[in-house]
Amino acid sequence: MLRKRLEQIVNHRLFEPTIIVLVVVNAIVLALETVPQAMKFAGPFLKVMDVTILGLFVVEILLRLSVDCRGFWRDPWRIFDFTIVAVALLPAVGPLAVLRAFRILRVLRLVSTVPSMRRVVNGLMQALPGMGAIVLLLGLIFFVFAVISTKLYAVAFPDWFGTLGASAYTLFQIMTLESWSMGIVRPVMEIYPWSWVLFVPFIVMTAFAVLNLFIGVIVDAMQSQQSAEAHDEREAMSAETSMILQEVRALRAEVAALQRVRAAE
Amino acid sequence: MLRKRLEQIVNHRLFEPTIIVLVVVNAIVLALETVPQAMKFAGPFLKVMDVTILGLFVVEILLRLSVDCRGFWRDPWRIFDFTIVAVALLPAVGPLAVLRAFRILRVLRLVSTVPSMRRVVNGLMQALPGMGAIVLLLGLIFFVFAVISTKLYAVAFPDWFGTLGASAYTLFQIMTLESWSMGIVRPVMEIYPWSWVLFVPFIVMTAFAVLNLFIGVIVDAMQSQQSAEAHDEREAMSAETSMILQEVRALRAEVAALQRVRAAE
Amino acid sequence: MLRKRLEQIVNHRLFEPTIIVLVVVNAIVLALETVPQAMKFAGPFLKVMDVTILGLFVVEILLRLSVDCRGFWRDPWRIFDFTIVAVALLPAVGPLAVLRAFRILRVLRLVSTVPSMRRVVNGLMQALPGMGAIVLLLGLIFFVFAVISTKLYAVAFPDWFGTLGASAYTLFQIMTLESWSMGIVRPVMEIYPWSWVLFVPFIVMTAFAVLNLFIGVIVDAMQSQQSAEAHDEREAMSAETSMILQEVRALRAEVAALQRVRAAE
Amino acid sequence: MLRKRLEQIVNHRLFEPTIIVLVVVNAIVLALETVPQAMKFAGPFLKVMDVTILGLFVVEILLRLSVDCRGFWRDPWRIFDFTIVAVALLPAVGPLAVLRAFRILRVLRLVSTVPSMRRVVNGLMQALPGMGAIVLLLGLIFFVFAVISTKLYAVAFPDWFGTLGASAYTLFQIMTLESWSMGIVRPVMEIYPWSWVLFVPFIVMTAFAVLNLFIGVIVDAMQSQQSAEAHDEREAMSAETSMILQEVRALRAEVAALQRVRAAE
Repeated sequence: MLRKRLEQIVNHRLFEPTIIVLVVVNAIVLALETVPQAMKFAGPFLKVMDVTILGLFVVEILLRLSVDCRGFWRDPWRIFDFTIVAVALLPAVGPLAVLRAFRILRVLRLVSTVPSMRRVVNGLMQALPGMGAIVLLLGLIFFVFAVISTKLYAVAFPDWFGTLGASAYTLFQIMTLESWSMGIVRPVMEIYPWSWVLFVPFIVMTAFAVLNLFIGVIVDAMQSQQSAEAHDEREAMSAETSMILQEVRALRAEVAALQRVRAAE
Repeated sequence: MLRKRLEQIVNHRLFEPTIIVLVVVNAIVLALETVPQAMKFAGPFLKVMDVTILGLFVVEILLRLSVDCRGFWRDPWRIFDFTIVAVALLPAVGPLAVLRAFRILRVLRLVSTVPSMRRVVNGLMQALPGMGAIVLLLGLIFFVFAVISTKLYAVAFPDWFGTLGASAYTLFQIMTLESWSMGIVRPVMEIYPWSWVLFVPFIVMTAFAVLNLFIGVIVDAMQSQQSAEAHDEREAMSAETSMILQEVRALRAEVAALQRVRAAE
Repeated sequence: MLRKRLEQIVNHRLFEPTIIVLVVVNAIVLALETVPQAMKFAGPFLKVMDVTILGLFVVEILLRLSVDCRGFWRDPWRIFDFTIVAVALLPAVGPLAVLRAFRILRVLRLVSTVPSMRRVVNGLMQALPGMGAIVLLLGLIFFVFAVISTKLYAVAFPDWFGTLGASAYTLFQIMTLESWSMGIVRPVMEIYPWSWVLFVPFIVMTAFAVLNLFIGVIVDAMQSQQSAEAHDEREAMSAETSMILQEVRALRAEVAALQRVRAAE
Repeated sequence: MLRKRLEQIVNHRLFEPTIIVLVVVNAIVLALETVPQAMKFAGPFLKVMDVTILGLFVVEILLRLSVDCRGFWRDPWRIFDFTIVAVALLPAVGPLAVLRAFRILRVLRLVSTVPSMRRVVNGLMQALPGMGAIVLLLGLIFFVFAVISTKLYAVAFPDWFGTLGASAYTLFQIMTLESWSMGIVRPVMEIYPWSWVLFVPFIVMTAFAVLNLFIGVIVDAMQSQQSAEAHDEREAMSAETSMILQEVRALRAEVAALQRVRAAE
């Protein structure tokens, strides 16, 4: 009885829009918290708003859980919502104080609630598995070059190549081509004149790998679109051809009948 | 009577070319105004030219309006022309003095007047709606990261992350990969060593989103071109197939006639 | 008589390879001239080599001209060769001294002589006309923004926006995203805080235009490749379909003959 | 007898996985060697591990060689494995000390051992030959511009354009757009104001060449995928059409038989 009542609430046509409005209002409140004047004039009000909306989100999730508990844990979007709200409930003190800044992640509930956004993100996600092998290869290239550059340059350039992590970060910077020469490689070349032998191939290799990642995604997107189209076309074509086949067969049956009649005479 | 006269003028085959010439001359005049020597020797003459051409533009728009007032307000290109000329008529004094520099926007009338330019811009515009969802997603990513980085770094780096606007600009810079590491993230990492956890994913996410924007536009452009081609092909194919179908059906009718005759015997 | 003799020389199967060898040797000689040690030990020899090869090129062009003067001036590659050699004959003194450095352009004769290189460059050239309208639009965008930024910032930043030319160069730099923010826009924003309103849209617009240029070339390349393929396929298909049509028509003729015979009975 | 025994070992289903595990363990060991704490606590142990695994790799290669010596030298992946292990056996002393850092290249054995990685790298390799002509053209452009810029700017900017090699490196940096203007071209323009005439076209030309490289690879990838698809489709289509053809021919034969019977009457 109660459950049916709750179900009616959750499936009400105004339930989802209300959540969307709450998410947007919450986003505005959190954005205003970064404006010092707004905090001075309406600080306590903004805090109350924030806590209230968070409370409503908790209620929403409890409602959804009580109505369809199994379905909830199977839908990745719901788990996403749950995680975001759960994180917001952690006490943001001590080393967790940084979590206060991440409360804005609640805005991402827009993605899980608005269907058109959901579709876009799902589309992006579908492109990921096709990238697997090349991302792995890219990872391997990074690992190899990070170990080599750490071994060679850790002593002379501890800021850039001091540890494996520092080297990986610097290599990521080099891959994005940001200040790779004037900022990193030219200074390194002043001590190790041959270091370009390491970095220029690294740039060419990662550029080539990223290019292929890119092409893979394009070709994939096209393939799925085209094969759908080609299928439609073939279907249409096939309909006509099979109509001809049918007609020809009927004709043959008739001619055979003619022949049989004549043979019977 | 008068209206017919005006219509004749507006539809005259030299009317549009004259406007184009005026736009080009105006562009040259406005360009010359940036050259100090030209201003010294022919400053007053250039100003007179500029005012005269602006007057002619006003006359042109009044002509067009009097001939076909409704059509004028329905054509976005005409509204574009109107806005540009109207802005030029505002008094460029006080805070509006900056508008003097924007008079060169009148050159954009070339786009609205030359058909081939018009077609290109229309083509670019058509690509926009397909981008909608991803641009929105990109906007959301920017908003979330701007709020987070403002909350975390506003105190230590007021120039880069002092306000939401400053953070958004800095994030745009990071998205274009300009000095993102040496200029921004490395200095931030000296105070907050874990800040790369925020910025590296931001770069990867926006790069991935822009890549998908890109791919969407390519696939769209291809799809429209290909489906047109496929349609032509199918048509041609279909013509032949249906000719066969017709022939077979005629044949069947003849055989049936043969049979009927024989049955009648 | 003499002409026939010359024709035999020009069309000899070793004529072109000899030229290619000369071009390569010349390239090596000109490259060695940039090495101080090589100049010290073999300077005079290198100079003699260079002059000799240039003389041989002159002879080659005279030969070609005397054999087929009209054809020479109609082949853009020959005119290209002629220009490069003619420029090398100018006295490289006074303001023309810079031309000495451009003698290496003779290496580009490799492109005009080796057929596979010629094909690649011809392919690149064919992509150009399709770019026309967008390149024009890009030019217009550059012109408008150059005039505006010169008017607004010439006084405060004469190095970057002092003249139309300086502004165009700076805008090109901004379009390539090189130091656009840390190097140019942030310093400008310290005096004119709203200048990002000008530069951020400029970056987005040019990026979008270049993207479309890019897409246009890809779609073009694909279209030409696919329509060739589709044409082959349709041909093959069509051959089969028309064979069926032929068969059906022959059948109809036979049935008609059958009927005629029967009617005659 | 012994050989058969060895063959059994090499073809055992746990042989390849064992190698993969060894490669991964070796990668971890080599990565740990870059961590000072790990070296302090477990330095000797790591060295022993490294030497042991290298020994196992030598044994593996000897096994493979003794089983199928010819096949070994024909498989480029095996030669790759051999080279990596052989290099590791060189004494890393004196000028070869740098080779110690390159021992991590052994991780690349993962690529040659894991089939899915092998497929990706093979795919990348297949894209290379199609790039040949444009890479050559790009090389020619680099050579020409390197010679010109060395001749013109070697004296004034020995660090950037002192030798052909330095110029090539600087041009590579300019091609990647890294600090090309603020870092290189603007300083050069202070002495040679017209140097942008050289560098801006260089940027446009290399960008255009790289774009075409890119497009070539995309179009290639698509072509191979599409022609496979088109082939399937044509096959399916053709099956139907030829069924019709068969039917029509059978029909014709029947009609002919009918006619023959009638003629015989």
